[in-house]
Amino acid sequence: MTRWLCTVALWAGAAHADEGMWLPEQLPQVGAPYTEQGLSLDPSELSDPFGGPMAAIVSLGGCSASFVSDTGLIVTNHHCIERFLASISDAEHNRHADGYVAPTQADELSVGPNGRVWVVESLTDVTDRMMEGIGKRTKDADRAEILEANRKALISSCEERPNRRCRVASYTGGAEYRLVDALEIQDIRMVVAPAHQMGQFGGDVDNWMWPRHNADFAFIRAYVAPDGSSAPYSEDNVPYTPRAFLPLNTEGLHEGDFVMAIGYPGTTRRHALAATMEQQVATSLPQGKYFRSSIHDIYARHAATGNVAAAALGPGMSGLANYAKKADATLAGVRRADLLTEKQADEQAMIEWVESDRRRARRLMPVYNEMMKAHAESVVRETRNTYFGWLRYTAPLLGISHDAWRNAQENLEPDAERKPGYQERDQQRRRQRYQALDKTLYLPASQEAFAWMLGEYMALPEADRVAALDAWIAAQGGADAAVAKLYDAPALASADARLALLEMTPEQLRASDDPWVQLAIALDDGFFAEERDKGEARSGRSHRLWSQWLKAKKDWYDSRGVPFYQDANSTLRVTLGHVRGSVPEDGKVYLPKTTMAGFAAKVTGEAPFAPPAHFKEAAQRKGTSRWHDATLGDVPVNFLNTLDITNGNSGSATIDGQGRLVGLMFDGTYESIASDWVWMDDITRAISVDIRWILWTLDHTEGTERLLNELGVGTEK
Amino acid sequence: MTRWLCTVALWAGAAHADEGMWLPEQLPQVGAPYTEQGLSLDPSELSDPFGGPMAAIVSLGGCSASFVSDTGLIVTNHHCIERFLASISDAEHNRHADGYVAPTQADELSVGPNGRVWVVESLTDVTDRMMEGIGKRTKDADRAEILEANRKALISSCEERPNRRCRVASYTGGAEYRLVDALEIQDIRMVVAPAHQMGQFGGDVDNWMWPRHNADFAFIRAYVAPDGSSAPYSEDNVPYTPRAFLPLNTEGLHEGDFVMAIGYPGTTRRHALAATMEQQVATSLPQGKYFRSSIHDIYARHAATGNVAAAALGPGMSGLANYAKKADATLAGVRRADLLTEKQADEQAMIEWVESDRRRARRLMPVYNEMMKAHAESVVRETRNTYFGWLRYTAPLLGISHDAWRNAQENLEPDAERKPGYQERDQQRRRQRYQALDKTLYLPASQEAFAWMLGEYMALPEADRVAALDAWIAAQGGADAAVAKLYDAPALASADARLALLEMTPEQLRASDDPWVQLAIALDDGFFAEERDKGEARSGRSHRLWSQWLKAKKDWYDSRGVPFYQDANSTLRVTLGHVRGSVPEDGKVYLPKTTMAGFAAKVTGEAPFAPPAHFKEAAQRKGTSRWHDATLGDVPVNFLNTLDITNGNSGSATIDGQGRLVGLMFDGTYESIASDWVWMDDITRAISVDIRWILWTLDHTEGTERLLNELGVGTEK
Repeated sequence: MTRWLCTVALWAGAAHADEGMWLPEQLPQVGAPYTEQGLSLDPSELSDPFGGPMAAIVSLGGCSASFVSDTGLIVTNHHCIERFLASISDAEHNRHADGYVAPTQADELSVGPNGRVWVVESLTDVTDRMMEGIGKRTKDADRAEILEANRKALISSCEERPNRRCRVASYTGGAEYRLVDALEIQDIRMVVAPAHQMGQFGGDVDNWMWPRHNADFAFIRAYVAPDGSSAPYSEDNVPYTPRAFLPLNTEGLHEGDFVMAIGYPGTTRRHALAATMEQQVATSLPQGKYFRSSIHDIYARHAATGNVAAAALGPGMSGLANYAKKADATLAGVRRADLLTEKQADEQAMIEWVESDRRRARRLMPVYNEMMKAHAESVVRETRNTYFGWLRYTAPLLGISHDAWRNAQENLEPDAERKPGYQERDQQRRRQRYQALDKTLYLPASQEAFAWMLGEYMALPEADRVAALDAWIAAQGGADAAVAKLYDAPALASADARLALLEMTPEQLRASDDPWVQLAIALDDGFFAEERDKGEARSGRSHRLWSQWLKAKKDWYDSRGVPFYQDANSTLRVTLGHVRGSVPEDGKVYLPKTTMAGFAAKVTGEAPFAPPAHFKEAAQRKGTSRWHDATLGDVPVNFLNTLDITNGNSGSATIDGQGRLVGLMFDGTYESIASDWVWMDDITRAISVDIRWILWTLDHTEGTERLLNELGVGTEK
Repeated sequence: MTRWLCTVALWAGAAHADEGMWLPEQLPQVGAPYTEQGLSLDPSELSDPFGGPMAAIVSLGGCSASFVSDTGLIVTNHHCIERFLASISDAEHNRHADGYVAPTQADELSVGPNGRVWVVESLTDVTDRMMEGIGKRTKDADRAEILEANRKALISSCEERPNRRCRVASYTGGAEYRLVDALEIQDIRMVVAPAHQMGQFGGDVDNWMWPRHNADFAFIRAYVAPDGSSAPYSEDNVPYTPRAFLPLNTEGLHEGDFVMAIGYPGTTRRHALAATMEQQVATSLPQGKYFRSSIHDIYARHAATGNVAAAALGPGMSGLANYAKKADATLAGVRRADLLTEKQADEQAMIEWVESDRRRARRLMPVYNEMMKAHAESVVRETRNTYFGWLRYTAPLLGISHDAWRNAQENLEPDAERKPGYQERDQQRRRQRYQALDKTLYLPASQEAFAWMLGEYMALPEADRVAALDAWIAAQGGADAAVAKLYDAPALASADARLALLEMTPEQLRASDDPWVQLAIALDDGFFAEERDKGEARSGRSHRLWSQWLKAKKDWYDSRGVPFYQDANSTLRVTLGHVRGSVPEDGKVYLPKTTMAGFAAKVTGEAPFAPPAHFKEAAQRKGTSRWHDATLGDVPVNFLNTLDITNGNSGSATIDGQGRLVGLMFDGTYESIASDWVWMDDITRAISVDIRWILWTLDHTEGTERLLNELGVGTEK
């Protein structure tokens, strides 16, 4: 008999933390120390977003992905293309559940008109253009208007060329801007997606958990017109030729090895005020969790009543459960590592630096004090916004009615002067959204949840309520009567009726006797219109303050030679780190890799642990796969690493020091979730699917020979 | 900056597994190898259940406990005395939630007439007496009757002395018997119990989980009459003087150190047939989980409607959730370690040994084959018994009515000839049970759950149903009408009405127009009476077969010099092992100790993570406690060990090699739960509360100075 003992040794190999979501241009500086740790590409190669491995990276909007062949083959997470699988399903084929394999190119199915891949083709500093017309004495409200006008002009000129999607991204609190110009590929086809129970093995139960055993991957392909231009789906289209694609590293990495990820992280709050974090921890997160859990429970009771309800409510319930769990995990993370104290100490260090120079202090301390004041005001606003947010969430017909009312108002202006989100370029997606509500609207659940939420609202002190809403409710004869009236066979339950709202003028809408429309207009007149007016000035103030404060913070970092990284803003970032488990603490250690044996042991045959049976049988035949790792004694499934990621990094290529794909980022550990606020060297860990688990799954999926050949690994026999 | 790396080293210190729940008499044999590993007591000292540390061990009935002072002070788990806290609560004092501290001896509150501690005073081999009258040709039904008569005679003679509780325990499948003669102490008082949120910190969420942070302990005291005899509560009673008590080891143990536990493990199935385990895994456990989860969900909906429902249904819901989780964990454990294959291999090895000798094979193979036949028959019976069990569970009034009917029938016989459970010695507890139903009966939830369960029953194929029940339902006009009638203001909802049933003769009961009583009698006439008759023969057969088979198994072990241990049967056992975390596997390692920092990080302020606030504050002042462990860098909270335990071991003293208390056993890890069937050297881990966490909690609880002095550790300042 043998036994294993885990001993703990001091490891001093790394002199710095792996924290940071770097802009490509920062790579020569921040990449240098990693060249001794396995980064064999020249860091300057990584500074060109349109060359080297970075040219292989694309955005799916909310997810990241990468080209893995010269004929437009793209790999990303299963959970990023789940909606595509739903759209290629029909009465006969439940591809959402069963996955999909195209054995030949002719079998690659169009994922429908919503499929999009964005290939960034240029990134231009437009700071001067954005700040044009803004001076020291510009009023806050004017500042916001000027920024919006400049932004719209930049986008509109960028999008004059066909098949462009352009945006202006803000950095350093608005002290810097870049125009991101992307080719929008519109013909996306499904190549291979595993069965749902493989691609999301463990589901909500395992979400954010470690040990993990997910095959969260899928392959799609980008198609363009024969002349190489982007075009909607057509039989004549041909695979797109990317500037670059990632080769695979099928040998795998070991604990401590260098690894990096490139992708489009969405949002972090690393530079937020400690007071904002404190408010989130004390109020927003617990409250958000309460609303989400309560509404989830209402939906769950309805979902249990039948398939129609279950199908309609399922996606919403996943989101509610997911974010309720995320709130819990964030709170736990903040408590465990005492992050609030750390955040406060960080902020204090900056203040001390500011105050160490009299002129700097005179310039910046008023900025800081005004930021604190703005924060205090925002807390007061937060309650109402939260309640209205959840009222609109539980009653999507209210959300649609309000949106239609706003849209009709904006339509009165020339296109260039409409608010962002209400311009011509936004209308196609608006119509799709109105239409798609058919799939998720389940009136009995909505009614119960909305009634419950309205009860929560009515229980607020009068000072926190909104007179316009109270008056409207009273006019209906009270909350119960109001809810009954709203949900009595509502006309807007029909997609045609919803789309018809978009054809109406403000006068016609105001004359409508639809109670949802009436409620929306009453709320807008009595609350939102005024909020929008105030919002302009607030937004200008926020820009004025944060652009100064973060510019100063950046200067502070520069003065010490410490690289400064921007909060995530959905633009391309590189993060550098290592394959690594967690630090031993409080009764446990996370080892960096999970195994096929662990996967087999989790299979119960009941969702979310119910992959097609042959996967379990194959997994139980240990040691027979070509993806077996001798060190691990098994096929690796998922691995932990110290890469600094957040939402939006889903599907990000996880890459070795030679620029080869070793896995796909898909999650972080439960203990890491608070890292949106503070990154923790000892604790924050991201989770990637090992490329060998992807290949093992393909080896055991029928019809994947063509894909395995295209990936350059051939088939097992 | 420093980092930690977990390296894995081969550990070859132990040449044998720590499996086995040993009888005291086996200690000289099985204890010997441990004397080189830290067991410094002479193993033969441990072979006397009435001397050495074993004399300090007592039973609470379903839990274990131990004396820790010479004035009757007893320590056990909080969850073992939870019911006592409920019984000393009233409208003004919610001691169940708040815990209780008696600053002086006069404050030690009687836990009420149900409080019992059993101190075993003798243990006698009564095999010959039990087998008297049984010969080779005795028919199975007669065998069962003779065993029952012998058992009753032994108990009755043993209990002729006052304040005795005696039982005859069966070993080796009924080849051996011992008479356990215990002093029944009836005056039990509460000394110190922590607040519920400390004593059951983590609640259902953390149940069976690691890392764990529970202060699952409480102190009670045994009182006797001034002359030393056992007596019910009286002001004049004095603390009991035990034969021995355990001193404390407050220095603590380290990973790999020797440790042992002494207690009363309830039930294991280590010697069961592989086919029985297979049937459990394939059917009983998944089905049990389904019923428990479904009924739990019904109760949960009712519990959400108000405090009365919540209080009544709470304990039942805990049990349902607990055992549903246990079923899941057992199934997961069986899958992970492929235990079924291991069990089958064990059985095959025994069969090979049997068959290796022709005479032995001729004697024992028919026994084995008949056991397999009996198993096959039992599978058929299992369905009905399961369904009837859950019908009685959901409808406690049915259970009571049936019990009253059986009791009235048995009452017709002289006491000595009544079935066990229906004798005079059982009547006080029966009345208490009937009375106590007031606390847990909540009719709306019972009605919904019973109706649901009846629906499940009706959906069975006719062959599996029971004609008598079907006929009774039909006579009421169908299931809905039957349920409505049973739950229409049932008279038995009153405790007086229930107790009145015990005064009635069978004739009076048969004439009753109470629908519950009618249903119970219809079921008994049409089903249970026949089952009882058949049960007699089955029980005799089981004894005939198992006593031969396990006797042979024991001989087989003896022939190889391998110690053979008995399945748990609620008698005193010793288990020997080490402080040890888990083997690294599949992405994780359990380290053997959790920390105060981990406790503080888990505190959310919401149950089950909501201890009184000052505990969290105290825990955050790291390094200031006298119970700080230098190696760990913190106060230890719970620790893992390789001791072989099961239900009934809750509260078991965890003892170092010198016989000093180092902790209290209170749980096993999730991965260990299948160990009721097969013990796994690399996986099976028990969880103890560290004595230092108990003392730390006492240090931070007001009014505990007297207790800390009695324990010999004094107070901090």
